Order: sequence, then structure tokens, then C-alpha cells
Amino acid sequence: MNTYFSCLPCFIRQALEAAQLASADERTTEEVLRRSLRRLSDLPFDKTPPHIVKEIHRIVRDLVKLEDPYKELKVRYNKMALDLLPLLREAVSASEDRLQTAARLAVAGNVIDFGHLNSDFDISLNEVIEDSLERPITINRTEDLRLDLERADRILYLTDNAGEIVFDRLLIEEIDRHNERVILGVRGVPIINDATLSDARQAGLSDMVTVMGNGSDAPGTILEECDGPFRKAFEKADLVIAKGQGNYETLSETPGNIYFLLKVKCPSIARDLSCRTGDIVIAKTDHARHANDVPPLAIDDTLSVGLP
Amino acid sequence: MNTYFSCLPCFIRQALEAAQLASADERTTEEVLRRSLRRLSDLPFDKTPPHIVKEIHRIVRDLVKLEDPYKELKVRYNKMALDLLPLLREAVSASEDRLQTAARLAVAGNVIDFGHLNSDFDISLNEVIEDSLERPITINRTEDLRLDLERADRILYLTDNAGEIVFDRLLIEEIDRHNERVILGVRGVPIINDATLSDARQAGLSDMVTVMGNGSDAPGTILEECDGPFRKAFEKADLVIAKGQGNYETLSETPGNIYFLLKVKCPSIARDLSCRTGDIVIAKTDHARHANDVPPLAIDDTLSVGLP
Repeated sequence: MNTYFSCLPCFIRQALEAAQLASADERTTEEVLRRSLRRLSDLPFDKTPPHIVKEIHRIVRDLVKLEDPYKELKVRYNKMALDLLPLLREAVSASEDRLQTAARLAVAGNVIDFGHLNSDFDISLNEVIEDSLERPITINRTEDLRLDLERADRILYLTDNAGEIVFDRLLIEEIDRHNERVILGVRGVPIINDATLSDARQAGLSDMVTVMGNGSDAPGTILEECDGPFRKAFEKADLVIAKGQGNYETLSETPGNIYFLLKVKCPSIARDLSCRTGDIVIAKTDHARHANDVPPLAIDDTLSVGLP
Repeated sequence: MNTYFSCLPCFIRQALEAAQLASADERTTEEVLRRSLRRLSDLPFDKTPPHIVKEIHRIVRDLVKLEDPYKELKVRYNKMALDLLPLLREAVSASEDRLQTAARLAVAGNVIDFGHLNSDFDISLNEVIEDSLERPITINRTEDLRLDLERADRILYLTDNAGEIVFDRLLIEEIDRHNERVILGVRGVPIINDATLSDARQAGLSDMVTVMGNGSDAPGTILEECDGPFRKAFEKADLVIAKGQGNYETLSETPGNIYFLLKVKCPSIARDLSCRTGDIVIAKTDHARHANDVPPLAIDDTLSVGLP
């Protein structure tokens, strides 16, 4: 998904928020903002929002000399979510459709997002959870996901935010009871409140599944900027679950068997998905990897290439 | 009031919105945004928001070649408000405190503000009016205003937005039944949806009181940029009623007998006034024009200057 013009104010808001979270003094904050404005005025807009956001956060990191301004917040929200885990597990157990409930809760966790919302807003997680269990799912490919999950051997689960990653654990427990099929992909470098290796560890996921940093500092999955091992894992996966807006923005036009689980939090995404802000989405873009669904690098198939 | 860092995203949003309202094509819109970002990166932030907003809107006007992108919207909201006028007058007549009710309704009209809110939001004017009549007034200097109005010979009433100006008419009818004391100050040049001479005419105010354009294209009252006649009127007024955020932002530190009537619509203003967004405010800054409340240019007083 390309950047919409309406994303620009949000980028500036993020620059300010990151500087403030890093307790930058007024002079530094002003410099962060001036450099961000200047950088934005030059950057191409025909890239995804995470392409641009990473540039802004590089400026913040460079000027405030703090690798991870959101660190404390991330730890706090991981803890908050871990406290809820037993309750969430009960909700899954008590439900008629465990997969759908776990998916709904994973989306509920997606509300913990300081990239989008102002970080001083009062998250009432309980309300969010309740809402996510009851709200109709606007785009709902759960049944396709269920079938694909039954068939998949290699599942790549791409996380979004800290805190949310604990909710992802629920869904991963549901789809991978024997802990063999799932690889968890997290950001390679701290960016906003996105989950990294240390959040996966805090969420207890590194003991359950293989966790891979993607080698990139973008708040999404810009494949060409990810490292080799991650790209290989992506290529080999026969099912990708991509959480959150950043992963949607960067992968919505990528061929592959990709399911997007997210809460729609901004008008640009809503426009792109033809839905409304606040909606719960379990979407699939249905871009065939190749025409006729031929998997890439399927050597046998190359033998049949040729004129009929 | 100086610009807060948190105003910056809003400036970019306004640039986009003005370009879109002017039906600028994609290329022009992008250029508006790039130039606005660049200009913002260079502008001093120790000025009021209207100082900066006017620069942004100059870029828009320059690139989209349209003097008044908000023209149609302004006409529409003036009409909507005029349709409500009989009903509003009844509310004033039926009330126990006509002045306070008229002031409350004038503030209700201040909600019609595309500079702050997104213009495609669904204004439910009736709800706004009802809320404004019932909501407690957070900062309430109505009694001081009442007394000052009794004593004042020259009242300068500074309007804010189109549409809102019809609501101002109610208050002006209340404070100036004989149409002799009030001069109405409007913006000199179209800027956002701010009221100009043509809105004053449409609202029926030019038949009631003297109307003056202030000669400036700022969405507020930057005195040093206003023309001579307006500055003179300002200086001579013994009571100024300043509507809306833009006038507050530009006059909050100006000495004078100035009352600010506004609906608090953004966190920066809320912070500056120590109140909350959504609040109704009838404030007075109490900056004495000179020490000991000596009026300026009071020639008699100059005679007494000297050591005791």
C-alpha cells in the first residue's frame, strides 16, 4: 500500500511523540521536527508508510541518542498483557470456535499501538477485549485460514507490537500445539513500540517457537530490506499470518498466501481495505504468487515451461 | 500564544485539506505538501499558530490558483446558520439570562471550524447548540463582561468563522440594540473558512453595524500585520470581544480589555488555558494595557510622569 497524503500529519506526530518519549529537551525536539519536516519534503511518497516512518525514527534515534525510546512502555504493556493471559485462555477454552476467538483476541491486542494512537490515551484493555469478541468481523476469511492452517507445514507469523505479542501467543498456541510449524518473525531493530526479540522473550514465545528478527528497522515488513535468513523463511512459508497495519501496508501487494489480521485504526488503511476505522479484519489479498498459483522455485514445474 | 510542537501535524493536515477543497490535482496537492513541509522546517516556532498557518495557506493559494478554496463551504454554512436564526432568537428570548444565552450560542457557532476539524465531519448543529446551552462554562467571566458592556462606548467584535458569524449576530443584537457601539472586525483576505466582508454581508451584519476587514490574511488577529484603520479601531475600543481559537492565539498576550469567547477544540489551546478540549470558555487575559491600568495615549497622565 502506498503512502496516502493523509499519512503525512501522522508521520510528524510520530516524530514528536518519539522525541518526547525519549525525554528529548526542547531544543532537540525542535531539531527532530525540523529535520523530519525537511526529510519528508524530499522523500518519495510512492512507497509504503513504513518506508517513510523508518526514516523519521532514524532521525529521532540519531538526535536523541537513544536506541529505543519506547522500551519502558513496551515492557509495561507486555506485563499488562501477560497478567491477562490466564483470562484470555479461559475465553478461548469457553468458546465454541477456539480459532476464531483466538484470532479475535489477537486482533484485540493490535489496539496496543503507539505508532497510531497517542501513547497517553487510556487503554481500557478490558473494553477492547470485550468489543473484539463481539464486534462483527468486517472482512472475514477465517474459514479459509482454518483450511490453510490444516494444510500448512511452514507457518510464518509476523508480529506487530509489544503487548500485542502476548495476545499473539494465544493464537499461536491454538494453531501450533506441537510447536513445530510456526516461525515467529519480529522486527530486527527497535522501532516505535514494535515487538523485537526481547518482547518475544518477555511474552514467553521464544520457548515455544523459533523466533527470528527480520533484520530491518521498518515498522512493517519491507522484504527487500530484511536479511537473508528472514527472506528465506518468508519464501519457504506456505502460510503467512501478518499482524497489524504496518505489515499490511508493506505486504498487501506481495504475492503469497498471506492473511492479514488487524484492527483498522486509520482512514488511509480503511480506504485501502474499503472498510471503516474500528473494523476487525481477517483479510487475504489473494495475489497469486505466480499466475495459476504455481509456487516459485518449484523445479518440477520449470520442466513443463514452453509452448503447448 | 506561541505555537506548540503539537500544532505541526495540524498545519500539514490543513495544507492537504485546503488543496483538496480546491480540487487540486494529485501533482499539485503533492507540491502543496512538499512546499509546506519545507516552509515549516524553516519557520520560527516562537510565533503564534496563525503566523504559520497563513504561510501554509499562501502556498496553497499560490499553487492552486484559487483565492478562496473554502468559498462554497462558507456560503453553505452561513445559510445553514441563517435558517437556524429564528430558533436561536427564541432560545435567547425564552432564557432567564439573555446575555449569557447569546454568548453560549455564539460559542456554539464556533464549532463550525474547518481549520480545526476535518471538513467532512458531520456537524450536527442541533446537538452542538443543545450541548452549548447546557454545558458548564469552564472559565466564565460573563459577569465581568456584562459590567464592561454596560460601561463601554466602543466595542470591537472580532469574528472567527463563516457560519459562526450568524451566531455572533445574536450576541451583537443583544449587546448593541441601538447599533451604535459595535464595530465588527473580519479577516481582510479569505483564509480557511474564516469570515470576511462577504460573510458579514451574508449574515446580515453589514446592515446592522460597521464592518471592517482587518487587512490581513492570517487566521487570527496579528495586529502588526493589520492595516492602519483596523489597528486604530482596536486601539480605540474600550472593549474587545474576540471569537475563536485564532483570535485567542494571536491576542492572548496583547494588553487590552479583551474577552475571548471560544470552544476549546485542540489540546494546545486547552493546555494554554489550563482546561480541556470541548470546554466552553468566556475568558479574559487580564493583561493590563499599561501598569496601573493607565490607558494608552491618555495625554493628561503624561503630565504626571516623573519622580515623586
